[in-house]
Amino acid sequence: MTSLYPHQTLEDLATRLFVAVGTPENEAQIVSQHLVESSLMGHDSHGVMRIPEYLDLIEQGRVTPGGLITVKQTSSTTSIIDCGGNFGQVGGRAAVEDAVARATEHQVATVITNNCNHLGRLGAYVQQVAEQKMIAIATCNSPVHGHFVLPHGGRQGRLATNPLAYGVPTDGDPIVADFATSVVPEGKIRYYRNMETPLPDGWIRDAMGNPSNDPEDFYGPPRGGILPLGAAAGHKGYALGLLVEILGSALAGSTCDAPNNAGNGLCLVVINPDAFSGQKLFAELASETRRYMKSSPPAAGFEEVLVPGELEFRTLQTRQQEGIPLDEQSRDAILQQAEKLSVETRTFSQEE
Amino acid sequence: MTSLYPHQTLEDLATRLFVAVGTPENEAQIVSQHLVESSLMGHDSHGVMRIPEYLDLIEQGRVTPGGLITVKQTSSTTSIIDCGGNFGQVGGRAAVEDAVARATEHQVATVITNNCNHLGRLGAYVQQVAEQKMIAIATCNSPVHGHFVLPHGGRQGRLATNPLAYGVPTDGDPIVADFATSVVPEGKIRYYRNMETPLPDGWIRDAMGNPSNDPEDFYGPPRGGILPLGAAAGHKGYALGLLVEILGSALAGSTCDAPNNAGNGLCLVVINPDAFSGQKLFAELASETRRYMKSSPPAAGFEEVLVPGELEFRTLQTRQQEGIPLDEQSRDAILQQAEKLSVETRTFSQEE
Repeated sequence: MTSLYPHQTLEDLATRLFVAVGTPENEAQIVSQHLVESSLMGHDSHGVMRIPEYLDLIEQGRVTPGGLITVKQTSSTTSIIDCGGNFGQVGGRAAVEDAVARATEHQVATVITNNCNHLGRLGAYVQQVAEQKMIAIATCNSPVHGHFVLPHGGRQGRLATNPLAYGVPTDGDPIVADFATSVVPEGKIRYYRNMETPLPDGWIRDAMGNPSNDPEDFYGPPRGGILPLGAAAGHKGYALGLLVEILGSALAGSTCDAPNNAGNGLCLVVINPDAFSGQKLFAELASETRRYMKSSPPAAGFEEVLVPGELEFRTLQTRQQEGIPLDEQSRDAILQQAEKLSVETRTFSQEE
Repeated sequence: MTSLYPHQTLEDLATRLFVAVGTPENEAQIVSQHLVESSLMGHDSHGVMRIPEYLDLIEQGRVTPGGLITVKQTSSTTSIIDCGGNFGQVGGRAAVEDAVARATEHQVATVITNNCNHLGRLGAYVQQVAEQKMIAIATCNSPVHGHFVLPHGGRQGRLATNPLAYGVPTDGDPIVADFATSVVPEGKIRYYRNMETPLPDGWIRDAMGNPSNDPEDFYGPPRGGILPLGAAAGHKGYALGLLVEILGSALAGSTCDAPNNAGNGLCLVVINPDAFSGQKLFAELASETRRYMKSSPPAAGFEEVLVPGELEFRTLQTRQQEGIPLDEQSRDAILQQAEKLSVETRTFSQEE
């Protein structure tokens, strides 16, 4: 059963939980806001259901609350952010602030991370840049143990779901795209397995490299793989995933298959429209482009044409009013952590 | 019937043809080299078969040989290249040289074009950057009359095939990806129409927005549309195509559907690895990443895993030895132009 909880309640509780395990208040807020915003925008898999997992990672010593963030400037337009094992969201926020400051002064910037934990919703970072009237393109790779995605024509995983995101400022909500370069994320395959339903064509290959519709052929053993974005044009999704990998590992000085490479590798490119059409005109023209896209009548089976992020901003509106849906299992996991840490949950429990 | 012609012969003839219509020698060479390299690498549709078309465009006053290229620097890291109606290849070459010079000094650069004609193979530009040990990402939009690609969920074209390319230096050939953000380019649909063969599923919708396998439903009237890359995940290909459009038009100060917007809008982002892992280590790690991709055993129906551009560099080797294939119709079109311009074709004709 799923119930709805006000986002303020969840954000407040999450902040207190992270503070209870030693996170500085301002950093706890950054993480809580990120998780709550992800839930508000409908990205539940990157939302508040992650709270117990993050607390577990801290307990296991795999996330260091308050870990020192070091900005190593390598030129006026570039920097490497050492995230010091802190929450990925804290490192990611530092990357955004640094890149925006550089692009404000020097028009373009490229910032990458080292020692960065789970970044969560990649779209959040490009959205933060777009809210400051600049264009952002971001990529995020993952370590070898998440290499479930097949290179085009291969049958052993060599890439993670390697998302690509971009944010474009407009006169209204920014355009925010954020998608895996695989045909689907692993979580969707798990969902079909749990539902005992065959997978659609074109999602996975089995360990021998044959197409399959059986989720078990992905999980194995022996393990199969997820296909790259593009179906018959899978070489395109593979090319994108490979770019994300190279920007996340080779540019950061890491090998792509280093077993001890624990985190997410962010690469954030920021372009300031002031160097081109200007922030004001650019936002107007981007709004005009959105109108042009949406002026196409819908195809069979669709009600309207959307631009990337539009559905998420609508969900945000709705959930800010109605609350964030949370299943019982996720709620209980949060309550258990709260009890263990002696964190007050009265407001949260009352909402049931 | 198709015959093989030495690439030097074709390059020499193309240069003399372009010079004959008033192109400065060095610019004629840039265009000829681009077209011949495209053919050598197997991209015949962007290769020497374009020679007669380019000569026609000059005769119609739509390309201005020797048109003034103006580099408008807008900051140390950014510029807008006004291509003055010159060949797209001449403008594109100027963009590459400018961006590489900026990224050499300032680590990153973003360069866009105005008044730019057909750029040809987008991969050529990122390849030129990668050969100078830097990373390049390039996008290229097209004017409204080429908007055959549907926005996800729509049934009227709103985007061109909007290619995206990137180049990554390695210890050997660079990794060069270059692909349309639609599921296929229009030329492939024409091919199926000419062969009177039904299209594969997932390529087009008819004018009413229903899936179709009939090439005539694309050409109409009424005109249908090509689907964005991604099949069921078409929102991803659409998001990419939209980014390419925005970087090509809004950033350049143009509306996306301006009827008089004649050319290609290039956006070229260059990242110098010296600001991060360093050019030498980066190239080594990129080579290592290539090896890791290729170490996956092949899936059913494949012989090996390739990285983007690998097949093209193999074709280059072969065709440099064996010659460039040219069908009779394309050859005759070139010979006719040569006759009209009184350009000597003895060497070319002898190769028949």
